[in-house]
Amino acid sequence: MTVVRALAAPAASAPFETTTIERRALRDNDIRIDIKFAGICHSDIHTIREEWGPQTFPLVPGHEIAGVVAEVGSAVTRHQVGDRVGVGCMVDSCGECDFCKDGQENYCSTQTVWTYGSPDIDGTITQGGYSQEVVVAERFVVRIPEGIELDEAAPLLCAGITTYNPLRRFGAGPGTKVAVVGLGGLGHMGVKIAAAMGAEVTVMSRSRAKEQDARELGATGYVATGEEGALEAVAGTYDIVLNTVSADLPLQDYLDTTRPHGALVNVGLPTSDYTVSPWSLVGGSRIVAGSNIGGIALTQEMLDFCAEHRIASTIETIGADEVDAAYDRVVDGTVHYRVVIDTATI
Amino acid sequence: MTVVRALAAPAASAPFETTTIERRALRDNDIRIDIKFAGICHSDIHTIREEWGPQTFPLVPGHEIAGVVAEVGSAVTRHQVGDRVGVGCMVDSCGECDFCKDGQENYCSTQTVWTYGSPDIDGTITQGGYSQEVVVAERFVVRIPEGIELDEAAPLLCAGITTYNPLRRFGAGPGTKVAVVGLGGLGHMGVKIAAAMGAEVTVMSRSRAKEQDARELGATGYVATGEEGALEAVAGTYDIVLNTVSADLPLQDYLDTTRPHGALVNVGLPTSDYTVSPWSLVGGSRIVAGSNIGGIALTQEMLDFCAEHRIASTIETIGADEVDAAYDRVVDGTVHYRVVIDTATI
Repeated sequence: MTVVRALAAPAASAPFETTTIERRALRDNDIRIDIKFAGICHSDIHTIREEWGPQTFPLVPGHEIAGVVAEVGSAVTRHQVGDRVGVGCMVDSCGECDFCKDGQENYCSTQTVWTYGSPDIDGTITQGGYSQEVVVAERFVVRIPEGIELDEAAPLLCAGITTYNPLRRFGAGPGTKVAVVGLGGLGHMGVKIAAAMGAEVTVMSRSRAKEQDARELGATGYVATGEEGALEAVAGTYDIVLNTVSADLPLQDYLDTTRPHGALVNVGLPTSDYTVSPWSLVGGSRIVAGSNIGGIALTQEMLDFCAEHRIASTIETIGADEVDAAYDRVVDGTVHYRVVIDTATI
Repeated sequence: MTVVRALAAPAASAPFETTTIERRALRDNDIRIDIKFAGICHSDIHTIREEWGPQTFPLVPGHEIAGVVAEVGSAVTRHQVGDRVGVGCMVDSCGECDFCKDGQENYCSTQTVWTYGSPDIDGTITQGGYSQEVVVAERFVVRIPEGIELDEAAPLLCAGITTYNPLRRFGAGPGTKVAVVGLGGLGHMGVKIAAAMGAEVTVMSRSRAKEQDARELGATGYVATGEEGALEAVAGTYDIVLNTVSADLPLQDYLDTTRPHGALVNVGLPTSDYTVSPWSLVGGSRIVAGSNIGGIALTQEMLDFCAEHRIASTIETIGADEVDAAYDRVVDGTVHYRVVIDTATI
């Protein structure tokens, strides 16, 4: 057992405090990671503010972790000391059920252990990446390829896989048209990845404010949805509409921008139910889908893809004392496009 | 131009009358078919009763047509006189747009000509299969393989392709679990096809009344949804839930019976919008989809599949004077499982 510095919320919505937490002694299959950077994901905020249910405090969030292997257990084979590695939303699972064997550890039939605020196999509550070290089962540690800086890599562990998974599943690639709704932490990765996959990418955002940014990120089209008739003008256009917005949207208007056989895929969690018309869905053989992060093998594939295509997250790096302010900016949507904590400042 | 006998609705919801209609003189690519059997699809009833919008009367419905080639145009190459053939929901399209080239003639960018009640290329209104002959462009005439009787084949042209298409698209096969909601004209084909594909099939129906039938059709599981807690007991079970019911159902309850990454596919058209929870859809990486018949090449594939697996529609054959009564029975859901008109009786 080691004691490490961390940034914890002492109570729901309370300002962060620097503290120390315990990390378990290495088991045979464990890896101890010297965390260098931890991304701030909007779900960290939902969790800390108990918008998704009650939590145990103090709580250290953070599931976009990039660092270097500091020590390995006796049975570890996948990584060695000095390797550049990442950890995303999960840190353990049974490893034996159909889902685990199929690379869908996030649907483990027994128990997926989430990176923070989650009961671990030993019954303790996990603590996340706003910390200087973490101990993780090797199956859940992925390699960060050369060519991606650790700070830019951190957000790929959640925002990257969350957008890569549905784009791949629904066939983004050459000859396809993809619209990305919202240009925040998730959306900007969606644009980069879809463009790298060879798709023709359009950004849908309320105003024209983000148009130039969208084009610089790889979009060739832009729809300002606040303009009268803007969505109607692109009805039946896209093979995939990737909705990264968590706010309630008029989903039908977006579904109608898909082509027949097209898919509207949601990765955000709005508070209201989705409502769509059977005539649009059945008549157009359309899909409304949801997508929830992705498995470990796919996460590695995503990182390799990003390295190959020389893309990563566009980030702002901050110190530990700026996290509270950053949370407000994430909620306000003024971040370009992901905030990453330099954990050396904790 | 030829004059042929047909069964027409003289006005919305009025009893059928025997009459004569004109079929066009053969163009170079046309085929004249001696219709032997025409299935009664629930959409015929919706159309004739103007439940889906106003129609032009008198109207001859019928888009599940099986017969024999009687004459071919000078440029016809796919079929010859004497061939056993079928015609489904479409009789023409542009043939040149991306959708037509991709085998999705039902989404033709210019004009899909539906088999009845639809403007034809020449501006006339099409008349359907409750008739003794029909003239159809050869691209829309499919071959009925040996091994399937013409009467049992007729319903495959709509009910068969409507269920085959989504089962194939969403991966029904060995190792998958498929639930079919509703055991009518569509549902019974869904069960047969999914079982032939190698899936483990469960029927979901309100009461236990259809359980024995379901098992005889190939289902190994049965859920009586009217029983307390029946759907909750199978939560997270199915890879595909094929909803063939047109009545409004509590869609969320059915969506929750899919496994993570599973799909709830709807082929009926209820009057109310679909409403589902983001937590179920996104959290489970689930799909809610619609599916609308299928293209011509896929229809041929479906017929060949049915012949190979020795399945076809389970039918009741009736004469022309029984059609009005049959409509009421279709609406009541007491047909086992598709009514086919012997067109020799018209």
